Amino acid sequence: MNDRAMRDMVWSGWGDPGRAAPLPDSVAGLLRELLGVRHAAPAVPLSGVALPPARLAGPELADLTAAVGGPAFLRTDAESRVRHTRGKSTPDLLRIRSGEASDAPDAVVLPGDHAEVLAVLRACTRHRVAVVPFGGGTSVVGGLAPRSGDSAGSARPFVALDLRRLDRLLALDPVSRTATFQAGLRAPRAEELLSGHGFTLGHFPQSFEWATLGGFAATRSSGQASAGYGRFDDLVTALTVATPEGTWDVGRAPRSAAGPDLRQLVLGSEGTLGVITSLTVAVRPAPASRVYEGWRFGSFEEGAAALRRLAQDGPLPTVLRLSDETETMIGLARPDSLTGRPDDAAGCLAIAGFEGTEEETANRRAATHAVLTRCGGEPLGETPGQDWERGRYAGPYLRDALLDAGAFAETLETAGFWSALPELYREVREALTGTLTEAGTPPLVLCHISHVYPTGASLYFTVVSAQGEDPVAHWAPAKRAANEAIIAAGGTISHHHGVGTDHRDWYAREAGPLGMVVLSAVKATLDPAGILNPGVLLPAG
Amino acid sequence: MNDRAMRDMVWSGWGDPGRAAPLPDSVAGLLRELLGVRHAAPAVPLSGVALPPARLAGPELADLTAAVGGPAFLRTDAESRVRHTRGKSTPDLLRIRSGEASDAPDAVVLPGDHAEVLAVLRACTRHRVAVVPFGGGTSVVGGLAPRSGDSAGSARPFVALDLRRLDRLLALDPVSRTATFQAGLRAPRAEELLSGHGFTLGHFPQSFEWATLGGFAATRSSGQASAGYGRFDDLVTALTVATPEGTWDVGRAPRSAAGPDLRQLVLGSEGTLGVITSLTVAVRPAPASRVYEGWRFGSFEEGAAALRRLAQDGPLPTVLRLSDETETMIGLARPDSLTGRPDDAAGCLAIAGFEGTEEETANRRAATHAVLTRCGGEPLGETPGQDWERGRYAGPYLRDALLDAGAFAETLETAGFWSALPELYREVREALTGTLTEAGTPPLVLCHISHVYPTGASLYFTVVSAQGEDPVAHWAPAKRAANEAIIAAGGTISHHHGVGTDHRDWYAREAGPLGMVVLSAVKATLDPAGILNPGVLLPAG
Repeated sequence: MNDRAMRDMVWSGWGDPGRAAPLPDSVAGLLRELLGVRHAAPAVPLSGVALPPARLAGPELADLTAAVGGPAFLRTDAESRVRHTRGKSTPDLLRIRSGEASDAPDAVVLPGDHAEVLAVLRACTRHRVAVVPFGGGTSVVGGLAPRSGDSAGSARPFVALDLRRLDRLLALDPVSRTATFQAGLRAPRAEELLSGHGFTLGHFPQSFEWATLGGFAATRSSGQASAGYGRFDDLVTALTVATPEGTWDVGRAPRSAAGPDLRQLVLGSEGTLGVITSLTVAVRPAPASRVYEGWRFGSFEEGAAALRRLAQDGPLPTVLRLSDETETMIGLARPDSLTGRPDDAAGCLAIAGFEGTEEETANRRAATHAVLTRCGGEPLGETPGQDWERGRYAGPYLRDALLDAGAFAETLETAGFWSALPELYREVREALTGTLTEAGTPPLVLCHISHVYPTGASLYFTVVSAQGEDPVAHWAPAKRAANEAIIAAGGTISHHHGVGTDHRDWYAREAGPLGMVVLSAVKATLDPAGILNPGVLLPAG
Repeated sequence: MNDRAMRDMVWSGWGDPGRAAPLPDSVAGLLRELLGVRHAAPAVPLSGVALPPARLAGPELADLTAAVGGPAFLRTDAESRVRHTRGKSTPDLLRIRSGEASDAPDAVVLPGDHAEVLAVLRACTRHRVAVVPFGGGTSVVGGLAPRSGDSAGSARPFVALDLRRLDRLLALDPVSRTATFQAGLRAPRAEELLSGHGFTLGHFPQSFEWATLGGFAATRSSGQASAGYGRFDDLVTALTVATPEGTWDVGRAPRSAAGPDLRQLVLGSEGTLGVITSLTVAVRPAPASRVYEGWRFGSFEEGAAALRRLAQDGPLPTVLRLSDETETMIGLARPDSLTGRPDDAAGCLAIAGFEGTEEETANRRAATHAVLTRCGGEPLGETPGQDWERGRYAGPYLRDALLDAGAFAETLETAGFWSALPELYREVREALTGTLTEAGTPPLVLCHISHVYPTGASLYFTVVSAQGEDPVAHWAPAKRAANEAIIAAGGTISHHHGVGTDHRDWYAREAGPLGMVVLSAVKATLDPAGILNPGVLLPAG
């Protein structure tokens, strides 16, 4: 475990404390004029966070200490508990910023290897203590808040199982192009370790700088370069999972017809079936060449048709995204260069990025150029692409600044088949706009497509408005309305954020009664005491 | 249901009765000289097949008749029972050809829609009658022989649930490029229905002419053009499954992070969790251009390295296969032009096929040409490709002729990571050769790679030898030795044939104890009475 892996995120917001930046004046002005944002809303100091009493007693703490090999790796201090309270959704941040930490873990355990994770699970099963696996802590769907929303509330004590000490590259097979990592490794360090061998994982979601490989697998993450490198669930060939019933190894061959694909039960299980402790993933040669460029389309519809053409008939850029008219106008397609001034021209900005060998990149870029031009696109050159690249991880920092300034900002996402996408887009936008306008805080609703498939695409919405009196309660009806609109229009409740506690009720409708019964049966088999992430994905037992 | 869909396969072998052909004299000579094949071994006539007494009584038959809407769709005649006895593995054929039909179904039911399938499952649950879903009947792994090998044997009556009446195209979405089919539709008819709209499924396994779409899904089929169109499990976006507990709809979006991917539990479940009654699959524009060409490599190793280069760095042909030295020498890479005379030159024959638009095909072909040439390949032009195409579905007909002639012929397959492939190849070959040689019937063992992935590839073995005294018992130790070698060398017990009853014990080792417990829990949830394909995939309860 090196220093970098141990580095902590800002407890009250996102990311590296040194990188926080206030809003440009022009944006602050826009918030006032356009959204009626009036008062700044700073976070309380860390010392102002109210923690519930820790509920673990001597025998439980002794067993947990033994499980992790000593007191250095069991933490019950206030700061550790605050830093492991919930995730990084806007409601999570609003609550912690106000000093409310009612569902903080009772302790934080830091096991050092797979055997210690098993030992923690055995100790917690014995004492009926719940366990929340904690990777980068970047969940934006309530994936780290057990029993949140249940009437049972925080009745049962729970520990955050922080995986940061499981941070090693275990094996690299350059012939098969696979790498086996421990699950607590953060993505940038995985890239560093791979680059020493000339490889990349190619997985760059917005949470890249903080998220862990195990978290990517547990939540079916999808990166900004998914068109080129695939979703994370496409990359995983095998996983080792610590469960209360023992070790579960899944995945044996590149592909197989030997029964159901049990890897696909672990992927997306969000810590409810077991704790992923290591995983084998496909890797690729680090690209010699990277080019990102901008394109302008007359409308979101026209741009979406162009993206569909590429997704269905090729060639496929490595990165492919399209902002709608509002997102383009606001300039949030390039958050790092956000000025609050609208872009020069109307229409919709698309980014097409190419990574690979010099020759392959040049060929694919030229072929893409031909298709996009035929589809009505206007090439804008590399500047918008470079702007996008510079700001690709900046969104959450911007959100912190918006929250400080008294604005509300949140994102949500879905995916649907191409033929259903126009309705899905319209209905979700209207649900958000209608609900928040009725509540007296007319929002800006921005949207982009950032993941494309032959049969459909994702839609990613950003909502910015004034904060209501009680901003968490104020947002809840809008989020509910968006979820209802997604299900009604045939979308999935999440394309890449996951289910957590926030989407649980809608997930139950998406999976259907038999799907939920099946999943509950799997959970009861692997976690008979129901200690693992209770209330996430499935109702708490 | 049209006439074609109702057409029956040869009961004692493969395919269309009109297409059966005797072996060329030169091949018969080769069998004599090389393998010591002495005596022809013709099948008994249909009337010579000994059926066990049918065990379904009045109340059961009455309920089943009601479930399928009348007596026309419940069959208990001898021919129907024989035609639904087991599948098309060589042991299956040897047993039925000898007149042994001890595990024939007690009746055959032909439901007309999803509701009738549900009704059949309810009736069978009530009467504790086992149900074997029957699509094309092309299983080569004992997928249609319930409890085969169990001591309980055929103690429990069972029905074959023939899905041939579920043969409609239900919906086509040309924008999203998806099609929804009933599951009993045979692949050629699906292609006909799609071609009227300009689309293709692109799924062409050797069983193509007889297999059904539901069977492809239930067994994770992989077609000869998998490099271009993907495996069948890649194509499925949604399934509707009739289970004893009701209807299970799985799959909602192109891709999703909403929990585990439950589609992947149905895919590969081989009728043990439910009966797939309809499914939605991705389709593609029917290709305007198709070119298949031959390449020669100095050795299997050199050819495999070239295939790996294409699979990892592209471009990827639509069809990509490589025969080893023995398969190349025998000419079985092109079964339709089999002469028994060795090819003109040594080395290994590869086939690269390209399908798509004229322009796209030409570009990909040229780029592939450059890579294969750099990898030491010698282009042989289109003749070997055309030969391969003509014979692509001919293998099973050739097997019938070999069995008639008194030879034994069987295939088996696996997949592994690239770095493990040389050992996997060597160990499986040696297991087959060693066991059969020791038993007094030294075999020819041929092998090809026919499915490639960035991380690995499949290996497909063909074994030809003289038949032993009791050919089924004679083969069993060789098959067991091959299975052991596969598991020991890190391969999967099946890349595309499935598990059935034949691979069940090795599948249990591949899935591991917790994997089997999970799968059993899922089965107990959906099929509490254990009526669905007992003994397939999982031990019979």
